[in-house]
Amino acid sequence: MLIDEQTLPALARGCSVLGAGGGGDVHTGLLACRQAVETYGPVPVVELDELPDGDMIMPCGYIGAPTVSIEKLGSSHEGEWLREGLEELTGRTVAALMAAEIGGSNGLQPIGWAASLGLPIADADGMGRAFPLVPQVTMEIAGIDPSPGVLTDERGNRLTINASDGQWLERIARTLSIEFGGRAASTEYTMTVAQARSATARGTVTLATEIGRAMLDADEPVAALADAISLRCLIEGKVVDVERQVTGGFVRGAAVIEGLREDAGRMLRLEIQNENLVAIEDGVVRAMVPDIITVLDTHTGAPIHTERLRYGQRVTAVAFPCHEIWRTDGGLALAGPRAFGYEFDYTPIEELA
Amino acid sequence: MLIDEQTLPALARGCSVLGAGGGGDVHTGLLACRQAVETYGPVPVVELDELPDGDMIMPCGYIGAPTVSIEKLGSSHEGEWLREGLEELTGRTVAALMAAEIGGSNGLQPIGWAASLGLPIADADGMGRAFPLVPQVTMEIAGIDPSPGVLTDERGNRLTINASDGQWLERIARTLSIEFGGRAASTEYTMTVAQARSATARGTVTLATEIGRAMLDADEPVAALADAISLRCLIEGKVVDVERQVTGGFVRGAAVIEGLREDAGRMLRLEIQNENLVAIEDGVVRAMVPDIITVLDTHTGAPIHTERLRYGQRVTAVAFPCHEIWRTDGGLALAGPRAFGYEFDYTPIEELA
Repeated sequence: MLIDEQTLPALARGCSVLGAGGGGDVHTGLLACRQAVETYGPVPVVELDELPDGDMIMPCGYIGAPTVSIEKLGSSHEGEWLREGLEELTGRTVAALMAAEIGGSNGLQPIGWAASLGLPIADADGMGRAFPLVPQVTMEIAGIDPSPGVLTDERGNRLTINASDGQWLERIARTLSIEFGGRAASTEYTMTVAQARSATARGTVTLATEIGRAMLDADEPVAALADAISLRCLIEGKVVDVERQVTGGFVRGAAVIEGLREDAGRMLRLEIQNENLVAIEDGVVRAMVPDIITVLDTHTGAPIHTERLRYGQRVTAVAFPCHEIWRTDGGLALAGPRAFGYEFDYTPIEELA
Repeated sequence: MLIDEQTLPALARGCSVLGAGGGGDVHTGLLACRQAVETYGPVPVVELDELPDGDMIMPCGYIGAPTVSIEKLGSSHEGEWLREGLEELTGRTVAALMAAEIGGSNGLQPIGWAASLGLPIADADGMGRAFPLVPQVTMEIAGIDPSPGVLTDERGNRLTINASDGQWLERIARTLSIEFGGRAASTEYTMTVAQARSATARGTVTLATEIGRAMLDADEPVAALADAISLRCLIEGKVVDVERQVTGGFVRGAAVIEGLREDAGRMLRLEIQNENLVAIEDGVVRAMVPDIITVLDTHTGAPIHTERLRYGQRVTAVAFPCHEIWRTDGGLALAGPRAFGYEFDYTPIEELA
């Protein structure tokens, strides 16, 4: 598969759906990628099975608050600086880029960087969705060392990080993203192709593109999405309240959706840390991390990222299963409800009423 | 000259005097150095003229709030990690360590690191005193590149920094020192011996040791200090007010000294950002950065660092000229009163009433 100007809108839509409200609004990411693909040509999507075992995979993306990302644009050199930094550090050559998270703009951004570097993009990512924290990746569960990491900004500040563990990598990268104005580009959890085959969520670039294509080709995109993946509709209604602030390098807050039509009289509350974490109705949890909760525009089907939620939007909130690795003990320890401070255990969306 | 257990107390006292209240209280730094010298042997002090032109000098020390430094001890590995990081980055060998600032504990700390690394210490530093900001060094005036820098903490987090300029290096290092709990060890402005000869304050390790020796050998240490260096006594009195907070990675605040004996009826206010910046009496500035304002215990002559000032201390505040490089246009732009937000020009202590 090649990602070109025709494929990009479908991929962007799919990334947005998989983003659980986070990973950054795809609008500016799509513009940046379109420009890169126009300038440097399309980007080949490679299967990890097709690459030599010992080649190096560079997971990458932006860290920060999505609210900032939609206004603070990159310089287009970040991908080059990340690769240079990583190759100098390791003395090895990057064979392919990979989105650290497929969700939101972070699923797209590595494509723009890959285009300018003349490198392919791996058909995989580190989450199968978006999560707020750097170590909330499948590579952490697989025991890949998060260090060395490389971090840069649009001014050309360039850092290499050897952190004592994944939590410290998160703290260091987060505090630097704040100092840089709310966003930094970074790579962590570098690995070989052989490692990546079992340490990543596979096939997610293809999945995102297929989801997006199904929706963009359809007259009724929400229904088309429900046909494409195993989906639960949480509520159809109107956004009646949004609290949101950028704090500690994250977007945090909550939104309330009041049901309309068949759902009239119902109220659903979404709690947010960059992504939609839990959906609660009358004190009952209707969906929870690591399953994916996404809010769609009821008419266009376009996902509304958490930083774009506002009063009056007509929306349909949906939830669907996360990648199976997040349902293991290791996955839940890293990204289950308790990892976000909730005092309840995970129940898969399929088992919730 | 060799720095051994006998020399260390004199050096510590001299560093403390030159620290202008900052650079960190020498107590814990002295303990750490004494242990290192006991374990690894004394540290040779080398003249920059004795070293080969092309050898590499590593300026180093701690960055952060002194209030934290007296409680948050190092791991003793920081010097080793800084050197390793720098040598990996540059592919060159460090020939000698140098204190980035001779003032306070930062004038001592590199001696402990040098002992454990089996390296000499250069008879020079980057300030001739202590200053709060990373780029407030003679190397910045001489046009030495602040990058690459290396930063570490006691946990083993290790970063290399290529900043877009000295201000960004300061911002990055400061925010990381805060994240690490208020203190980080770092090296910046690496240079060759040939560069260091004209880019540093020379002979300051010897100067500090001589100042300390004169005071420690004397029955009246304050008078002995006045004999050793050209000194102005600002006030002898009692600390009657201290405001102080740790904010933005600095100690900021002010202290008021009420005159006693011959100075009865007078009040002197010291304004603080890690170091004593200005001394004001009845709205008139009596001494100002970059000249050195140090508060001494009236009886013992021991300097009282800004983080140790408290109500009731009997003190003598003194001021004396800074290194001449700080009186140049470049020096004043970097560390004159206006660089700290004061709206007046620099007047040398010798010309003030």
